[in-house]
Amino acid sequence: MNAILISIGDELVLGQTIDTNSAWLSQQLAAIGCGVLEHITIPDDQSQIERAITNSISRCQIILITGGLGPTADDLTRQAIAAALGTPLVLNEPWLDNMKQFFARRKRPMPQTNSIQAMIPTGARIIWNNHGTAAGIDADPVSPLFPSPSASFGTMGEGEGLSSVPQKPATSQPCRLFAVPGVPKEMKGMFADYILPILRPLSSGAVILSSTLHTYSLGESAIAELLGDLMDRTRNPSVGTTVSGGVVSLRINARFSTLQEAQRQLAATVEQCRHRLRSLIYGQDDQTLASVVADLLLHPPTHFGPGPLIVATAESCTGGLLAKMLTDIPGSSAYFHQGWITYSNDAKIKMLSVDSQLLAAHGAVSEPVVAAMAQSARQNAAAHFALAISGIAGPTGGTPEKPVGTVCIALASGTSTEASTHLFPGDREVIRDRSAKTALNLLRLQLLKLH
Amino acid sequence: MNAILISIGDELVLGQTIDTNSAWLSQQLAAIGCGVLEHITIPDDQSQIERAITNSISRCQIILITGGLGPTADDLTRQAIAAALGTPLVLNEPWLDNMKQFFARRKRPMPQTNSIQAMIPTGARIIWNNHGTAAGIDADPVSPLFPSPSASFGTMGEGEGLSSVPQKPATSQPCRLFAVPGVPKEMKGMFADYILPILRPLSSGAVILSSTLHTYSLGESAIAELLGDLMDRTRNPSVGTTVSGGVVSLRINARFSTLQEAQRQLAATVEQCRHRLRSLIYGQDDQTLASVVADLLLHPPTHFGPGPLIVATAESCTGGLLAKMLTDIPGSSAYFHQGWITYSNDAKIKMLSVDSQLLAAHGAVSEPVVAAMAQSARQNAAAHFALAISGIAGPTGGTPEKPVGTVCIALASGTSTEASTHLFPGDREVIRDRSAKTALNLLRLQLLKLH
Repeated sequence: MNAILISIGDELVLGQTIDTNSAWLSQQLAAIGCGVLEHITIPDDQSQIERAITNSISRCQIILITGGLGPTADDLTRQAIAAALGTPLVLNEPWLDNMKQFFARRKRPMPQTNSIQAMIPTGARIIWNNHGTAAGIDADPVSPLFPSPSASFGTMGEGEGLSSVPQKPATSQPCRLFAVPGVPKEMKGMFADYILPILRPLSSGAVILSSTLHTYSLGESAIAELLGDLMDRTRNPSVGTTVSGGVVSLRINARFSTLQEAQRQLAATVEQCRHRLRSLIYGQDDQTLASVVADLLLHPPTHFGPGPLIVATAESCTGGLLAKMLTDIPGSSAYFHQGWITYSNDAKIKMLSVDSQLLAAHGAVSEPVVAAMAQSARQNAAAHFALAISGIAGPTGGTPEKPVGTVCIALASGTSTEASTHLFPGDREVIRDRSAKTALNLLRLQLLKLH
Repeated sequence: MNAILISIGDELVLGQTIDTNSAWLSQQLAAIGCGVLEHITIPDDQSQIERAITNSISRCQIILITGGLGPTADDLTRQAIAAALGTPLVLNEPWLDNMKQFFARRKRPMPQTNSIQAMIPTGARIIWNNHGTAAGIDADPVSPLFPSPSASFGTMGEGEGLSSVPQKPATSQPCRLFAVPGVPKEMKGMFADYILPILRPLSSGAVILSSTLHTYSLGESAIAELLGDLMDRTRNPSVGTTVSGGVVSLRINARFSTLQEAQRQLAATVEQCRHRLRSLIYGQDDQTLASVVADLLLHPPTHFGPGPLIVATAESCTGGLLAKMLTDIPGSSAYFHQGWITYSNDAKIKMLSVDSQLLAAHGAVSEPVVAAMAQSARQNAAAHFALAISGIAGPTGGTPEKPVGTVCIALASGTSTEASTHLFPGDREVIRDRSAKTALNLLRLQLLKLH
């Protein structure tokens, strides 16, 4: 079973509203094994809506339309569906009564314009809306392969004859069309209460389960090389990569006929990915670098002794971003008590007792200076670990020896202090983000280290 | 001029990622008078991409494709464009060189898989990408009305003949196709630097100019009441409101036949909005609360004496976010030298000498405690101002007297310390964000105050 989603609204094609309905519906459909071929977004224009429906009928089993069912003159979805189906609109008395009661409960007269919301194409069924006056429509479009010529031919737009529609395989089942309002709350309720119970038994059985693994530190192509044949396009479960904020994520989709098989196969591929990438993978699904570090600090490997372990921060170029990430996590007060933002050299000297001669000799962006910052922060905070960052976030301040993007990071622990120098590409925002994430990743790897 | 936007990615049709690119691009196109006919979202499937391109060529003047230009096997956009255009892919040497340099600067070998990113359809032009290895493509598809039969016919998918493509009006200009990566930062840069300068002179007739004014502290309906008739739907220039991150923004669109008239009318409506909202408006277009505060600190009103003025921070629940926002701005070292993150009570006592009896009497989230934090931070940093924040960001830690969302903020200056208590709705992330923004807004209003 597969579906095409059609979102309708001027505000969508004008870019004033972001379409979140299609993503939500796609997830719901994937969960019952219904593939989504396409999302189509079009304005409140009757001929464009009609054209999109007509072109979709032959290509999928389910057409799911959202939007354009309001009471005002710019809402034209029901008229377009009627035209595409070649049937006139007819008044649905039960829904008209329901709307009248809706307004009566609010002690207001029903505006005359609302009565259009009780009109549905002849032969179609109402989808009840418990949250508003826009009823939905459930219809069985006549497949254009078997048209009643008088009814269908007149509805084709833009000079297209019936012969222009790509032919649907002869084995396909008839197409079913559902239209619901674009208001997310109404759409979701009507999908869950009416559409899902109809679709679930129709789904051919295939179940799609997904999982996402997150890596940090290597680029997309390097990760792809390590994954090798796991990324073959024909593989099931499939493995694909996406990049966001320096994080390369692996999306694993398993499509099988039973839930049990999908679960088993998904778990097996997740395991294969983990085996190939090992500690490059920091987390799964909703986990972030900060949440994983938090878990490790709260529940450290046994050789560290009982948790929570405490981490302190000393930041220059990131200006508080590292501490912000550490405290994004609810309950962070268990492992984070304090941090220093030493943006000027003077602040590094006064707040963290960094030797002014060290600063003069090596510069603020240097491994000796971040090492001193980390050691001092760890000691002053009586913490198990301290992370220190000093770098050139730009856009100015770079030199040939230390260009913009040069960032030194140190991690002080009870036994040692390790400092390293990095060169991050990108603008100020990206450089600061990668600096903080790299520091978190260094702490993560330290906490995973076997002794 | 009109356009069709095609977004490509399995993650989009699976609903795992919400397509925000299409909305952004639609806004940009609307601003230059280019209408958007349709957004089409399809998976990383070569025949579907090819089909979408082929069907769009005859329907619009501009095809704008995002996504599917990565280096891995699931990225098939360039192959599909070549197939739709009926031309083979060819290596673009300048971009290959550029990629090699990109990797050389990072002292890494270029993975072999990346070389596909230097392949573009024969006859097409490269769109330079300053933020990544995925070059864009600028091509002139052969209109299917005038095909070179051998080249085009073989590229049609799914059993469609040339006759199946709806006919484009004979007067239309040829279609131009642009493809850029789906990574928003890369897509936006390439659109602004390359595509927009090409499209702007092509757009005909009405000029649409836009400006955005930003307010902070009141809700959308309160702002709408103050704006009154300026928000009439039929007004030109139009005034609409949007809300994002607690910021209520006014979008003003002026649509006139000449640039001069549009500029004059836009400026007049901006002035009317400013007159009604006064200091509620903190900035315009790209300005943020932090950038406006930065400007005021660098160039303060004369009664403060010459700038820059210095601000220090003392943060508890925001954990560094306020300092991060202040240092988001390039050149922030001129007005920000240091900050303290005192997440625990102990840190407040040790780092900022907050009286332990004060903490015991009032609690960490109290006006006396934030006032003490701000005074101490200002003094220790020898700064003109200090901002201090202490609150309950949740999800736990609330009490009947101080529920989650209770945040105390203090601003210490040379002459006084003002502390206030706020109750922010929302989750941990929202509460922290609003706390930091409210602190910035308090400093902004202080800097604007007339003495």
